[in-house]
Amino acid sequence: MQLIHHPMSAASRFVRLLVSEYDIEPDLYEERPWERRAEFMQINPAGTLPVLVDHTGAPIIGAYAIAEFVDETTGAMHRGHRLMPDNPIGRAEVRRLIDWFLVKAEADVTRGLVRERVFKLQMPAGNGGGAPDSAVLRAARANIRQHMRYVGWLSQARDWLAGDVLTSADLAGAATISVLDYLGEIDWTAEPAARDWYQRIKSRPAFRDILGDRVRGLPPASHYADLDF
Amino acid sequence: MQLIHHPMSAASRFVRLLVSEYDIEPDLYEERPWERRAEFMQINPAGTLPVLVDHTGAPIIGAYAIAEFVDETTGAMHRGHRLMPDNPIGRAEVRRLIDWFLVKAEADVTRGLVRERVFKLQMPAGNGGGAPDSAVLRAARANIRQHMRYVGWLSQARDWLAGDVLTSADLAGAATISVLDYLGEIDWTAEPAARDWYQRIKSRPAFRDILGDRVRGLPPASHYADLDF
Repeated sequence: MQLIHHPMSAASRFVRLLVSEYDIEPDLYEERPWERRAEFMQINPAGTLPVLVDHTGAPIIGAYAIAEFVDETTGAMHRGHRLMPDNPIGRAEVRRLIDWFLVKAEADVTRGLVRERVFKLQMPAGNGGGAPDSAVLRAARANIRQHMRYVGWLSQARDWLAGDVLTSADLAGAATISVLDYLGEIDWTAEPAARDWYQRIKSRPAFRDILGDRVRGLPPASHYADLDF
Repeated sequence: MQLIHHPMSAASRFVRLLVSEYDIEPDLYEERPWERRAEFMQINPAGTLPVLVDHTGAPIIGAYAIAEFVDETTGAMHRGHRLMPDNPIGRAEVRRLIDWFLVKAEADVTRGLVRERVFKLQMPAGNGGGAPDSAVLRAARANIRQHMRYVGWLSQARDWLAGDVLTSADLAGAATISVLDYLGEIDWTAEPAARDWYQRIKSRPAFRDILGDRVRGLPPASHYADLDF
């Protein structure tokens, strides 16, 4: 399988974590979504990441479709460590949280911060590149606090974000937070329960690749890859 | 079951169409999401619509979780007219399109137009109400043309948006377009194939309720409820 992704896309990281938990190792292809390459736009006219290409060459587009596809074709065979609960209400809670991180937190925080701080570094100056817009950064940073408070609340109330066991909801949350943590945007002193939860998930083998990600010209926060931060 | 919704929320209309196709008739409760009522925020801290409350009182939050819940608990029993294909690649295409309409078109078009033209009418003047922001309207309207072109292209290439048979993707598309059509924002002369498709889906019994929706102080476009428009 192939995964078309960007290392600083939270939805891409979510899918990398998900397939890695199931020991699937797709070949990774980095796409710069702002370039809107014709070949890529033909596969996914929305121009968004990630896209998984299955072994028959069929593209599965977007984290929502990919998460369900991986659960149906692989997770369902992993009784005991499936990343989706067996009961429909439990699954609804996992999906609510995936949506929370990959749609709501993405819109409130991640998309703007990544565009301003990462993509603009990689874009040509005449074509969207340049200095970050400080109003966008300010708004995103105010929202991070709210989102981290919610993650802290969930981590305190439950063993894992959606309940008693690790699920895809934890992967979606950790994917989002790992992007923000790379950028040094998370104040870990404010939410100790969230920190404990993130430390547990960060220590999983599936996380190793993500802790090795580097963006040229933008080194990660010094504690980014530390398991004991 | 109960459905907490707003008549001009595309995601709410999608779920109303979905349950109606399966002959489920939840009691409808209208929520004004901009009020961020404490009781509602406790059920759904994201403050978004819709929320389905199942017969045990468990809330299922957001169109993504609800669509999968309804498919798992009801659709799977409707062999022959299930609104999700049986094969994983087919389901991935339906989910891609649900995401296209309820996340992408929502962000590009629907959310802004509905806020400016509908919600601001219903909000108190001191609290967000007032005249629409013409810059938001202009941007949304430019995006409608792109989205309608894509619906036109899909309608020409396929019998239904995701393939040979009616699926949830058609309901998500029609839900979004019905909101815009109420507001008179769709130029039907530009995309005849999309018009044929919408006419077919609009004629289904499940659509009747939605064609009867009215917003106080904002009558629908004159052709809104016509099956032959």
